[in-house]
Amino acid sequence: MPAAAQALLRTLVDAGVDVCFTNPGTSEMHFVAALDAEPRMRAVLTLFEGVATGAADGYARMSGRPAATLLHLGCGLGNGLANLHNARKARVPLLNIVGDHAAGHAQYDTPLQSDIETVARNVSGWLRRSASSASLCGDALEALAAARSAPGQVATLILPADVSWGEAAEAADARRPSAPAPAPAPAVSEDLVREVARALGAGRRAALLLGGRALREPLLRLAARIAARTGARLLGEVFPARMQRGAGLPVVERLAYLPELAAVQLAELDELVLLDAREPVSFFAYPGKAARLLPPGCRVRALAEAPCDLHEALERLVRQLDAGSAPPLLQAAARPPRPRGALNARKVCQALGHLLPEDAIVVDEAQTSGVMLPAFTAGAPAHDLLALTGGAIGQGLPLALGAAVACPGRPVIALVGDGAAMYTPQALWSMAREGARVIAVVFNNRAYSILELELQRVGAGRARGRARAQFDLARPELDFVRLAEGMGVSARRAATAPEFLAALEHALAHPGPHLIEAVVPRAYAGLKLRLLPRLLAALDRLPPGMARAVKRGVAP
Amino acid sequence: MPAAAQALLRTLVDAGVDVCFTNPGTSEMHFVAALDAEPRMRAVLTLFEGVATGAADGYARMSGRPAATLLHLGCGLGNGLANLHNARKARVPLLNIVGDHAAGHAQYDTPLQSDIETVARNVSGWLRRSASSASLCGDALEALAAARSAPGQVATLILPADVSWGEAAEAADARRPSAPAPAPAPAVSEDLVREVARALGAGRRAALLLGGRALREPLLRLAARIAARTGARLLGEVFPARMQRGAGLPVVERLAYLPELAAVQLAELDELVLLDAREPVSFFAYPGKAARLLPPGCRVRALAEAPCDLHEALERLVRQLDAGSAPPLLQAAARPPRPRGALNARKVCQALGHLLPEDAIVVDEAQTSGVMLPAFTAGAPAHDLLALTGGAIGQGLPLALGAAVACPGRPVIALVGDGAAMYTPQALWSMAREGARVIAVVFNNRAYSILELELQRVGAGRARGRARAQFDLARPELDFVRLAEGMGVSARRAATAPEFLAALEHALAHPGPHLIEAVVPRAYAGLKLRLLPRLLAALDRLPPGMARAVKRGVAP
Repeated sequence: MPAAAQALLRTLVDAGVDVCFTNPGTSEMHFVAALDAEPRMRAVLTLFEGVATGAADGYARMSGRPAATLLHLGCGLGNGLANLHNARKARVPLLNIVGDHAAGHAQYDTPLQSDIETVARNVSGWLRRSASSASLCGDALEALAAARSAPGQVATLILPADVSWGEAAEAADARRPSAPAPAPAPAVSEDLVREVARALGAGRRAALLLGGRALREPLLRLAARIAARTGARLLGEVFPARMQRGAGLPVVERLAYLPELAAVQLAELDELVLLDAREPVSFFAYPGKAARLLPPGCRVRALAEAPCDLHEALERLVRQLDAGSAPPLLQAAARPPRPRGALNARKVCQALGHLLPEDAIVVDEAQTSGVMLPAFTAGAPAHDLLALTGGAIGQGLPLALGAAVACPGRPVIALVGDGAAMYTPQALWSMAREGARVIAVVFNNRAYSILELELQRVGAGRARGRARAQFDLARPELDFVRLAEGMGVSARRAATAPEFLAALEHALAHPGPHLIEAVVPRAYAGLKLRLLPRLLAALDRLPPGMARAVKRGVAP
Repeated sequence: MPAAAQALLRTLVDAGVDVCFTNPGTSEMHFVAALDAEPRMRAVLTLFEGVATGAADGYARMSGRPAATLLHLGCGLGNGLANLHNARKARVPLLNIVGDHAAGHAQYDTPLQSDIETVARNVSGWLRRSASSASLCGDALEALAAARSAPGQVATLILPADVSWGEAAEAADARRPSAPAPAPAPAVSEDLVREVARALGAGRRAALLLGGRALREPLLRLAARIAARTGARLLGEVFPARMQRGAGLPVVERLAYLPELAAVQLAELDELVLLDAREPVSFFAYPGKAARLLPPGCRVRALAEAPCDLHEALERLVRQLDAGSAPPLLQAAARPPRPRGALNARKVCQALGHLLPEDAIVVDEAQTSGVMLPAFTAGAPAHDLLALTGGAIGQGLPLALGAAVACPGRPVIALVGDGAAMYTPQALWSMAREGARVIAVVFNNRAYSILELELQRVGAGRARGRARAQFDLARPELDFVRLAEGMGVSARRAATAPEFLAALEHALAHPGPHLIEAVVPRAYAGLKLRLLPRLLAALDRLPPGMARAVKRGVAP
């Protein structure tokens, strides 16, 4: 009879989980040993658990399928927690396998003993400690069914060492009746579809706010037909898990992170219909400012919230509105010219728009440096955009690793702030090990630049020396080229636009991981928040393209 | 009236907390702004929360006083969780300040919203969400009293942004009656002291197992007098939070990590008296092996468990045994000679023993590479040893940072495995920023070497290609010199013993952070566990020093 760990691996692979992002320890050794007996399982070693969990998230966003993680007890899970939080907010399917001590060992309260369940509960829609080797494979199938239940969630299976090393009768068969199937998504009521159709057809100023699955085909195009037919605007949530955009795809105006700008985007609405999205609120609370961003009197209706069948509801809505033949507003192909001169964050985004290859995957964790990214890549060839769903920075590089494992034929470009890159730099090593086709662009502005902005926003006054030092990453300067090379990733530094273009062209021409350190000034260094209202008031006097860009959350 | 965050900082500093290890975000901006108004608070910025929590642990171990951490919501706390686990097991005083959204903001379930309490509960002996600006300073004093209650614990204060930006009447006064004092440690019963005295005086084969505070002066010397008077052996716990050792200090035989070796150390005991320690068990459970390591029939008595007053109990025990004038067995000064030839882990430890300066702080997270460290540094000048209390690796570099902040005049030498170093490499940047007097020695054996050993131990068979790849850190090779330089720390690589000696001499002569990459073969590459019994049987035929070294957990 095989060891239970072997049966578990066979069960997972038979059920379609054939990638596992790992950082194992002693209690996971039987799982590791079983890799020799199950060559269909690809185990991607990471040096830090946050890389494993973020990569599993990126894998799921791009493949639609869950990867497993292999984590070492409560502390390994803790290290992976921030990116599991992001994955939870992205509502992706993901299976954590968390090793634990053998059942009888807990009583001794040895050093690594901790309460795994309590930590896991935070991020897991499904959680179980496997009670026996005999039930392990069934537990795994239940976990997978839960992970895959619409729209997707994190499932955590705690695997005690003795369950792992015990004997299983056989691997569970994912096709047998005993293997639970994910529950079908419930239908949206006909009344609600009719109500939304009436609201959109009433001639009021309306918008559809797209989130989750609605930002991807085929739902995206259905929404665009409805918009074309009714005159409603198409808005996108601030931080999408995965958004399809670019030339030939419907034009969606993503909401800005800055509440002042998002409020401008939403100012004239009477009706907002949510498609797998939530009512827009500010990311943080600020003293004396409302969190809700919609104008008073704007009516909000959710057409379908998870886990409802949004696709089918949208098809009904299209029929009711007779929008099936309405031509959606599609993005025209357009690229900005090559940037010149000294480098700044805007020119990095411009260079990216100039060179972005077909079918790229763009991971955006660029914070303040990425504000011009949407505008400059809008007309680039069709691509996927993956954003920071849960606000826990340190996601960009792991997400890119996972996306590259899911889509080995597609170029992945990760735009990451210097601060963000330093939470999970270990992802670079796994990229090199896997030959992942990732180009990591690190904006080195030598600051937690977004915090300089936030300090103004929370009304905490003007930071002087000691407070200001908390945003300062210049003492000492981080050298991302050395960091990347130290982990086996080829790297270049760019301080001018031509250098950046050359480095990006080189990286695109040579598949495999690359890092480009873009040395840039702080994007908001000159921005005075108190000037924002005046700026917004001046929008109508700006050239239309620039005004649109600002309204989309692209700061000046 | 001052903002509550300002009053909080003043309260903390007045109460003796004047160091804060930070990684702030928007919800912590008022705390950050308040740094300008409270120059007595030293804020040490870290790039990753696990560095902040590990550094606060190291600071507390060496200063005996709590540092604060400043963490950003549940995800920041999550990133710091593994080293908080280690701190909890080390039983140090530590105060986490975890920012959160303003109270009214939770309802919107914005991206960073998560259940902070659930995550915090795991590691916190005291936990509270501050309810108002008016109560904040009182909450902080209660948190500090809890953190300082014997023997020390982690206290976590959740600080909602609106509590932070609200107005406080004044800073709380730590000297006022309303400020709670830590509860005094209860006395050990006279019956128990008498019972232990009788047991030790009965002529049976006895040992004192020292842990926690018992491994430091003045308790250490009291225990040594008792040992000298009664003939009991002095044993030390496997992973001490802080152990004082070296020339002129009592000789304590630390228990080995490998259960087979620890069992040899414990084999002939009839009596084991625990001094702030716990009964020895194996770190992990292994199939078919007992977790308890004591021989059957060995009687175990705990003289004092936390929070009892062990010092006073030991003084009574000394009086009862008339051991006050018994001369403790003190370690003679002795250094190994300079190592020669190609480098290996043993020679690194030997070089360290040869050069260890007076009053050093040694942080041991060297895993398999550090097995010879106790033997080679036993007779070096008196030093402190800080070990991996909770088994969650990634502690060594942060701990060294915190120890250096606590003791700026003392050299800190951190011995870290390559795998361990990669969990929290960001600590190097904070060392450079603070000019910390840390020498980080990274053993680069290009493997999770301890897992190769553990795989054998759990009986999971012999790893072949795919399983073995999970221990392999050679594809690609990590270049720790580049990694260190990328974070502003000067670094050298050593592949021979003379190179290592030269690098260590250079680092010792130039205070400030250094990294030395010691390129070494795997310590256990040739060790066959099945040969261990034969080896142990041969112990009596080994030279006595070597046999003693093996029994102390120093593998061949």
